[in-house]
Amino acid sequence: MSELASEPSAQGVTAPQGFRASGVVAGIRSGDGPDLALVVNDGPQHAAAGVFTRNKVKAAPVLWSEQVLTTGRVRAVVLNAGNANACTGPEGFQTAHATAEKAAELLGCGAVEVAVCSTGLIGSQLPRDNVLAGVASAHAALGDGAAAGRAAATAVMTTDTVVKEAAHSDDAGWTIGGLTKGAGMIAPSMATMLAVVTTDAVVDAPVLDEALRAAVRVSFDRLDVDGCMSTNDTVLLLASGASGVVPDTAAFTAALTDVCRDLARQMQADAEGVTKRITVQVTGAATEDDAVTVARTVARDSLVKTALFGSDPNWGRIAAAAGYADAALDPDRLDITVNGVLLCRGGVAAGNRADADLKGPDVVVEVALGLGDGAAEILTTDLSHGYVEENSAYSS
Amino acid sequence: MSELASEPSAQGVTAPQGFRASGVVAGIRSGDGPDLALVVNDGPQHAAAGVFTRNKVKAAPVLWSEQVLTTGRVRAVVLNAGNANACTGPEGFQTAHATAEKAAELLGCGAVEVAVCSTGLIGSQLPRDNVLAGVASAHAALGDGAAAGRAAATAVMTTDTVVKEAAHSDDAGWTIGGLTKGAGMIAPSMATMLAVVTTDAVVDAPVLDEALRAAVRVSFDRLDVDGCMSTNDTVLLLASGASGVVPDTAAFTAALTDVCRDLARQMQADAEGVTKRITVQVTGAATEDDAVTVARTVARDSLVKTALFGSDPNWGRIAAAAGYADAALDPDRLDITVNGVLLCRGGVAAGNRADADLKGPDVVVEVALGLGDGAAEILTTDLSHGYVEENSAYSS
Repeated sequence: MSELASEPSAQGVTAPQGFRASGVVAGIRSGDGPDLALVVNDGPQHAAAGVFTRNKVKAAPVLWSEQVLTTGRVRAVVLNAGNANACTGPEGFQTAHATAEKAAELLGCGAVEVAVCSTGLIGSQLPRDNVLAGVASAHAALGDGAAAGRAAATAVMTTDTVVKEAAHSDDAGWTIGGLTKGAGMIAPSMATMLAVVTTDAVVDAPVLDEALRAAVRVSFDRLDVDGCMSTNDTVLLLASGASGVVPDTAAFTAALTDVCRDLARQMQADAEGVTKRITVQVTGAATEDDAVTVARTVARDSLVKTALFGSDPNWGRIAAAAGYADAALDPDRLDITVNGVLLCRGGVAAGNRADADLKGPDVVVEVALGLGDGAAEILTTDLSHGYVEENSAYSS
Repeated sequence: MSELASEPSAQGVTAPQGFRASGVVAGIRSGDGPDLALVVNDGPQHAAAGVFTRNKVKAAPVLWSEQVLTTGRVRAVVLNAGNANACTGPEGFQTAHATAEKAAELLGCGAVEVAVCSTGLIGSQLPRDNVLAGVASAHAALGDGAAAGRAAATAVMTTDTVVKEAAHSDDAGWTIGGLTKGAGMIAPSMATMLAVVTTDAVVDAPVLDEALRAAVRVSFDRLDVDGCMSTNDTVLLLASGASGVVPDTAAFTAALTDVCRDLARQMQADAEGVTKRITVQVTGAATEDDAVTVARTVARDSLVKTALFGSDPNWGRIAAAAGYADAALDPDRLDITVNGVLLCRGGVAAGNRADADLKGPDVVVEVALGLGDGAAEILTTDLSHGYVEENSAYSS
């Protein structure tokens, strides 16, 4: 387990009623760990929404699942680790299609009701026979308890060192649960983030879609960079309606956002090579978009990230990064605070660098622009020897 | 000396007639190395052009020198290492002004004819007395030989491990010479690049300006990322007219571009932590701008850079980076060649990864988009343990 990663909550995609899940060994990844997961929505409803990578190089499962989601309806999701099925051409697309058909046959539904997600190495064909046999094993292994959800979450792990699950039960009688995987940073999504979120609330597809986009915008998209997506990034939201409760839309969106944020924080804590959890908070921006842009630029800056790895409160690098962000900025109004110590006021040194204690695992960088009410927060990590080691030592 | 850096050419800013230079110990940087340089244009002409950082957080010497360059005339340039004089407010600006005044007094000209450049740590005041005394020492040490140009180039080095100079003598009777410093990467300019280029050709300021912008656009701006500039980046071009020769403008611009490219390649080879010189060539883009955008996105991608550090021809990461670049791209037309081996044809695996030999220090990544005639090349480096070490272990 990574130093900063914590044990996940006890419940994931099977926390809501109406869902079964499983994770099995299909022989896709090297080694003998579980690598294929199945999540099934037993209804009575099958409303769904999805958010996919904006990368122009889209993996076959993304191309397939985007088609599925146009119907607003998903009966099941097949996920695999160990191979991204990206840059695999028509053969790769046929494999994704065959995977959905196999699951559909076992579940007695149409292939167009089955979404597919993959993560792993880009550019090699997914071993189709292994996947299809794996789908059959996964179907046989389906269960509705916490262990089943955990098994699914485990089977999608790649360089993740811990399982990532979250759940929220609302007093009104509905529940949201989720799993995710993703560990590569600087740009977390580059290493593919896959998330499946389930709910037993009664919500139709258009509302699910709106709620999911709102939640992702301030959770997964605020984990470093959303402009820098992998070929496979996928977030799916499935609603079974099994609670029989129609939720208040605002309450549902808020709870969904909390679950997505919880999962995003788990990804941050388990990022490759992470030694610091860094939160970049920008306030006083002319607009929220500007705040996101400045926070993201600071969060991505390699000189900032290496300085923080070295526990150095190098606010000059933070100022320089903010200054080249494509956003309104007046250097004479720039304040920078690191772990509670104001180090730069009005663009000039203030306080004492030595007072900012960065020895611990958490660093909060506050950048106040003094221009307006725009505010945003980006979660990121430091750039460490571990990051370089993990990303140079093996092909992924 | 860095493993990849080579000995510079014998001539720099004093190669053209009409220039003197010096480098002295002024006590600005920690340690006792030379840290203040002076370059003087003895005329008869004093035409000049400059290109400055587009960072909104501009160092005091940039704010000062931008004013100077509005006149199209520069008599001398004072440069210091060890302190960026950035984020230093009115006091810092007064120090830059006082520096120019001191040099002007010694040279018998106006302060507005003296440009100032600084590089080093952001956010602390430059020790003004040391700088002013250093200017006097530098003035006393001025010389017009190669050793004097070398002394100036040496005094501006920060984490540079070798002096960086270049020169070009044209058959028509004029010469261009230059010095530069800059070593921080991923975004090279983040660590401040300062360059002074001199010529004895007879060229007026508007032509110098046009030639310099054209040269910088395809040299320093193609060394990784131009959108990611430090608070201090400055490129100055000074013309003495001492050769008495009016050059052909196209020939002059071409020679200036060659000198700037030579200096840019020296910066690439001496980048912090570099173990690979990486050239990313994009062809077949819809436009040249698109080609630059794709090449830059691939060049900046941390997963690509770490893979190449590990000598892994991971074309899938290259495809993914190209796919999230903000440029037109059709994944079905994407070809990727690494060190001469076609690894991806039409967006799908081709050839054999093992055939691409990346053990040597040079890696050429070719990305062919198949959409149009747009082409561009970006120079970058790998992301190594050395980079992390150098940027986390000390404050810069």
